[in-house]
Amino acid sequence: MLVDASTFDDAGVFALSARDALVQTVDFFPPIVDDPYDFGRIAAANSLSDVYAMGGRPLTALALLCAPETALPAEVVAAVMQGGLDTMKKAGVSVVGGHSVRDPELKFGYAVTGMARRKQLLLNSGARAGDRIFLTKPLGTGILSTALKQGRLDAALTRRLTEHMVGLNRAASEAAVAAGARAATDITGFGLVGHASQLADASGVTLELRVSPRLFLPRVLELAEAGVVPGGLGRNREHYSPSAALATADTANGARSIPPAVLDALYDPQTSGGLFVCVPERRAATFVSALRRRKGSCFELGRAVRRSASSVVLTAA
Amino acid sequence: MLVDASTFDDAGVFALSARDALVQTVDFFPPIVDDPYDFGRIAAANSLSDVYAMGGRPLTALALLCAPETALPAEVVAAVMQGGLDTMKKAGVSVVGGHSVRDPELKFGYAVTGMARRKQLLLNSGARAGDRIFLTKPLGTGILSTALKQGRLDAALTRRLTEHMVGLNRAASEAAVAAGARAATDITGFGLVGHASQLADASGVTLELRVSPRLFLPRVLELAEAGVVPGGLGRNREHYSPSAALATADTANGARSIPPAVLDALYDPQTSGGLFVCVPERRAATFVSALRRRKGSCFELGRAVRRSASSVVLTAA
Repeated sequence: MLVDASTFDDAGVFALSARDALVQTVDFFPPIVDDPYDFGRIAAANSLSDVYAMGGRPLTALALLCAPETALPAEVVAAVMQGGLDTMKKAGVSVVGGHSVRDPELKFGYAVTGMARRKQLLLNSGARAGDRIFLTKPLGTGILSTALKQGRLDAALTRRLTEHMVGLNRAASEAAVAAGARAATDITGFGLVGHASQLADASGVTLELRVSPRLFLPRVLELAEAGVVPGGLGRNREHYSPSAALATADTANGARSIPPAVLDALYDPQTSGGLFVCVPERRAATFVSALRRRKGSCFELGRAVRRSASSVVLTAA
Repeated sequence: MLVDASTFDDAGVFALSARDALVQTVDFFPPIVDDPYDFGRIAAANSLSDVYAMGGRPLTALALLCAPETALPAEVVAAVMQGGLDTMKKAGVSVVGGHSVRDPELKFGYAVTGMARRKQLLLNSGARAGDRIFLTKPLGTGILSTALKQGRLDAALTRRLTEHMVGLNRAASEAAVAAGARAATDITGFGLVGHASQLADASGVTLELRVSPRLFLPRVLELAEAGVVPGGLGRNREHYSPSAALATADTANGARSIPPAVLDALYDPQTSGGLFVCVPERRAATFVSALRRRKGSCFELGRAVRRSASSVVLTAA
């Protein structure tokens, strides 16, 4: 195959002029929540995220629908489309068209086009030693979605999970661009360590990440301990743990290592996850305040340092 | 948004600036020929056509692949992708990304983004009384594809059909823009009369079309007479024949009416059909010579006139 799986999931960037670039991405997938309207909202937020992760301003979207001809009530499909449309509207994006095909399994998503100033693109290759690292959403949507499928999630946490995945990365993207950040990625299928490794390798730096239970959504660690994890988690850990070194934190209270459940959950594949942003040291405060002004929040995760043997070094916070 | 679904235009149009617009479209569908490489080429040409039909210059494409996980050899999928890529390259279009999902049935296509000068857009609503009408590819791909599926097509005509569907509407689009045409559409699923009716209604004119057997690919009329037609043909005829009046041609040799097989085949749904272009009277010669310079050819079909009761009036040529 000419276009392999790794390039297949990236947002493409096309130079329109010396100043501007098109930022384009496509994603569509089967339902991950029961409510069709919420599924449409999540599919839209998730599709937009790749454009936000590049520092782009999404402008237009084309809807992609795979649906069975008869086995699904028309109201279900209408609710999916409406959820998508409402989220696109909220993001200020025009849905300019779409296409539907027959498929025994429902799938929905969008091809999204945005614009960015070429100088302001947030690239996987843009991190530099000294950058401070921020994460704009907690982790654990893969584990919670697995629990949801198994009927183990109560209504309140299901709502929390849905709101998390419906949340736009717009504020995070705008704050990163406003602060002059040069590197970001959104945390999706490869999990925190997977995406951090890709960014570290593309930038030629090592990323030192301080991790703790507070990075996760409620009940995620308890579910991970009980083995309620998606299949992708194990595959991510197998693939990316060789590029991640574990360091022991030297604290006033003695050495501390990362709890096993935390270590596991760092590989959890995310849907509509947050932005992982690398900000030059002297602009870090600007980023945090720009994000707060836009009603966003973040965790500080660590720092980029000169490249060593590992892509990522994990320490207990 | 400048153009949305209400006018049945071929693509969505989004104003980027006072001068420029994005022209965007998406299409993906199951194989219509046996050879996977040819299928990829046809899918690409067909996706690009909607941008050409609006007078846009296609710039980027995102690949969309639905494929079974195991039931299909990897070489088949690779050949489909390669066919698409080669056609995109020929058209000068960058494939900037893509997405694949599992589906028991193979489907392939693209989301395509182009640019156009807003003043030069070819719109369904742009035709004016007096315009002369041209068609840049013969008709009958639906009927021939049906014959192919039934094993009724010899190798030579199969090749001819494939080359027809692989052909880009680029020359036709550039010639139309160069000549100052303001209305065009590509002939696809609704057939000649369907697309002509939509354009007539959006423009508020009636289109007088002179039709004859020479509009069709070889063997199309003979197959139509034998009832070898796709299901979509009957649906198109049912839906669009009420907006099409039949006029009797008054010729030197007496009145002549349209042969039944011709009338049937005018409703044949096309894949990767030609452009239907409306050109102001005084620019018609410019269009034809601009098209010839680009190695293209066309049939003259008729004329737009002041709106009467019918969207389309059909006469034997």
